[in-house]
Amino acid sequence: MGWNAADKSLAARLPEGVLREVSPAYLEEPRGRYHGHAGLIAAPRDVEEVAAVVRACAAANVAIVPRGGGTGLVGGQVMTDGPAPLILSMERMIAIRQVYAEESVMLAESGVTLQQARDAAAEAGRLFPLSLASQGTAQIGGVLSTNAGGVNVLRYGNARAQCLGLEAVLPSGEILHDLKRLRKDNTGYDLRDLLIGAEGTLGIITAASLALAANPAESGVALMVVEDPMAALRLLALAQTRMAGGVSAFELLSGQGLQFLAEHFPQIRQPFAEIPEWQVLIEVGLPAGLQAQDALEGLFMAGMEAGLVSDGVIAQSGQQAADFWGLREHIPLGNRAVGAIASHDISLPLSEIPSFIADARDMLAAQGDMRINCFGHLGDGNLHYNLYPAHGRHRDEYDDQRHHLSRLVHEMVVARGGSFSAEHGVGRLKVDDLARWGDPGRLGAMRAIKQALDPQGIMNPGAVLAL
Amino acid sequence: MGWNAADKSLAARLPEGVLREVSPAYLEEPRGRYHGHAGLIAAPRDVEEVAAVVRACAAANVAIVPRGGGTGLVGGQVMTDGPAPLILSMERMIAIRQVYAEESVMLAESGVTLQQARDAAAEAGRLFPLSLASQGTAQIGGVLSTNAGGVNVLRYGNARAQCLGLEAVLPSGEILHDLKRLRKDNTGYDLRDLLIGAEGTLGIITAASLALAANPAESGVALMVVEDPMAALRLLALAQTRMAGGVSAFELLSGQGLQFLAEHFPQIRQPFAEIPEWQVLIEVGLPAGLQAQDALEGLFMAGMEAGLVSDGVIAQSGQQAADFWGLREHIPLGNRAVGAIASHDISLPLSEIPSFIADARDMLAAQGDMRINCFGHLGDGNLHYNLYPAHGRHRDEYDDQRHHLSRLVHEMVVARGGSFSAEHGVGRLKVDDLARWGDPGRLGAMRAIKQALDPQGIMNPGAVLAL
Repeated sequence: MGWNAADKSLAARLPEGVLREVSPAYLEEPRGRYHGHAGLIAAPRDVEEVAAVVRACAAANVAIVPRGGGTGLVGGQVMTDGPAPLILSMERMIAIRQVYAEESVMLAESGVTLQQARDAAAEAGRLFPLSLASQGTAQIGGVLSTNAGGVNVLRYGNARAQCLGLEAVLPSGEILHDLKRLRKDNTGYDLRDLLIGAEGTLGIITAASLALAANPAESGVALMVVEDPMAALRLLALAQTRMAGGVSAFELLSGQGLQFLAEHFPQIRQPFAEIPEWQVLIEVGLPAGLQAQDALEGLFMAGMEAGLVSDGVIAQSGQQAADFWGLREHIPLGNRAVGAIASHDISLPLSEIPSFIADARDMLAAQGDMRINCFGHLGDGNLHYNLYPAHGRHRDEYDDQRHHLSRLVHEMVVARGGSFSAEHGVGRLKVDDLARWGDPGRLGAMRAIKQALDPQGIMNPGAVLAL
Repeated sequence: MGWNAADKSLAARLPEGVLREVSPAYLEEPRGRYHGHAGLIAAPRDVEEVAAVVRACAAANVAIVPRGGGTGLVGGQVMTDGPAPLILSMERMIAIRQVYAEESVMLAESGVTLQQARDAAAEAGRLFPLSLASQGTAQIGGVLSTNAGGVNVLRYGNARAQCLGLEAVLPSGEILHDLKRLRKDNTGYDLRDLLIGAEGTLGIITAASLALAANPAESGVALMVVEDPMAALRLLALAQTRMAGGVSAFELLSGQGLQFLAEHFPQIRQPFAEIPEWQVLIEVGLPAGLQAQDALEGLFMAGMEAGLVSDGVIAQSGQQAADFWGLREHIPLGNRAVGAIASHDISLPLSEIPSFIADARDMLAAQGDMRINCFGHLGDGNLHYNLYPAHGRHRDEYDDQRHHLSRLVHEMVVARGGSFSAEHGVGRLKVDDLARWGDPGRLGAMRAIKQALDPQGIMNPGAVLAL
């Protein structure tokens, strides 16, 4: 193995048997924007070994890049320049330590995939609600470090809201033992929520105490056609009032996205003969004694009466519900087939969404000929706002404009009190955006905390905060 | 006014008109354990004035004790020794800046009382779910700084879960502008959750963006008699499964507590002819189309079938529901009439609760003759575990034992993975407990953060962490 002297010296200080061969799988990220480099790859087996690796790296002044499933979309998992880091892979910490079904709590190590965690909960008759497209690969440590979102945030919150406690290794090499199974504990600063979303820059999450939920007694899915985003938001408010917190997902689908699907995946059945300009996918989870179909029909009727809904279809079976979700989940495939000029993971205050969608469309029309697919987690105010070439043109033709267009979109979002990174995090991709738009008071406090906990700056340097 | 030279010098640096006269109301706390002292009292009118006060105190090296409604039970609001601090009262920052009904968001300043916030939400047709006994006096800044709990945590979470963003003044005098109305925003470290629960030791919360909820279409309350705490927990699991997250409160009432009430407040009607040893108060909030009484009756029948419930009564009117809650809410009055030897605000992993209650009873029986009232937020694993003198004896007779008994109870709780402060915080009362039982890794990181954000140590010194 082509180690240099420094790597050899560090390797000698690591616990026996933790090293892995450097291979491309550790150095890549899904969008192919970044190619990382690494001196050593370590895969510790328990928290003590993680702590030993961290202490050894601190002593050798070698940076550490934590690695989960590697599915992050903002380059948080790859370091591209500076002295080669050690990559700390969680691939061997894959135990589900315990499921407390009667408490609705699960203790899982960081290398457990989201799907495995969901399966373990299901086996115990419980629901681990966090759900996102990459859940077969994404790991618990990663989804917590990035405070991942997904399709059920509206009801169950982001990853942060589903974590009761953590075990972690701090940059000092000290272990944080806080794997509590408590819903209430007011004994000092909230380090759990500080590590969650810190993208590996303040320490390494090694295990988590996860809050499970009861599976709703009744559940159902519907697609409803709305005139415009304002009507969709009014329908959301109506649904929230009628369902008493029972709305699990409320996803916006634009006609443009379904058009892409129809063109490139004609085999996917679309429920409406003519593709509506706007529709919403609604999932509800309800108490025993109330049929989900009845509740959704009641919502549909109330939406019709209020002039919010013009058409709709309620899934009559589990298969049909899965088909509706399939339509939603295939949208990114259609997007990829077309090839985006630029994509944006934004959030807005709910009441700003209709005017943002209208104003951004006008603003972009003045910039050139392009198509917009705006879709996503409307219930959370989180939109995937993606730009595509005009029909017959290719994304490469927009290369000169890409950066400028994204800047314009983000400026419009920030001016309305929105976020330029709703659920993907900052990583390395959005470090400049954070420096530009972040509140100075907040950035100052972040830097002070980073300096206090990681004075050597060895934890995932260059992610979140500029070096 | 009897200011010394240092006070006079600081007073001259403060914004015009912020000073208030020192009066006992600023120096007391509800349990009368601590009597604070103060040099100056400042009541700024806006966040810039708060920042100016903080900068002036930093320059003069004078400590700041933030003061909300003063209802905290652990002495976080009173500094009893050391050089006299400036007390920073939020009494003039009482604006509800905006209610965004369509977003279910409210922007409120820190001096708004919890009741006022709840009323403003109700006026807009929304619910601000945080609810606790002192809500007429407790202020938003205080309930956030202590991450207050209350009776609806089971469904809506602690104060932390109900806050989307903060405006605050950091110990440096810099303003944190993070009053966002977003459900999703992953752009850096979670300073919001760090300030929430920091009890004023890391900065001063001046305003908050609060998440509101829809009022459930249907709601209902029942009292159900259970054999023991294990049956209560099984009934909770059954209720969670049947109600799909619709259980808003699940409170445990012990026979001892109701006995105290019967003795001292015989005018309060008790629904069961014979006081049951254990009962639970259940509140549900449900979707349109499902009558709460039907749902509660269904739960009662299922509980009977499962052998968990032996008797029960479902409120048939709003008045009866209020009466059931009245019974629950009067328990502290009965407690006060008897006079506790020691009281404990503990939480436990749910499945540890039955054995804790049994073992603690046996352990205490060996310590002497006393009565136990164990009640509270069972759904959250949060019990108020209070000790009372044996019949015919007085609490003063137990003075020698008090500290020892509390230590024994807390040790038993901590050994089972529980917390010695579930919802009241650390304040000054539990600083030693935190130092004793806190995880060393966690305490080290807390101290590093305190030192980084407040290097002079002027923010509420002596609270949470020892000086």
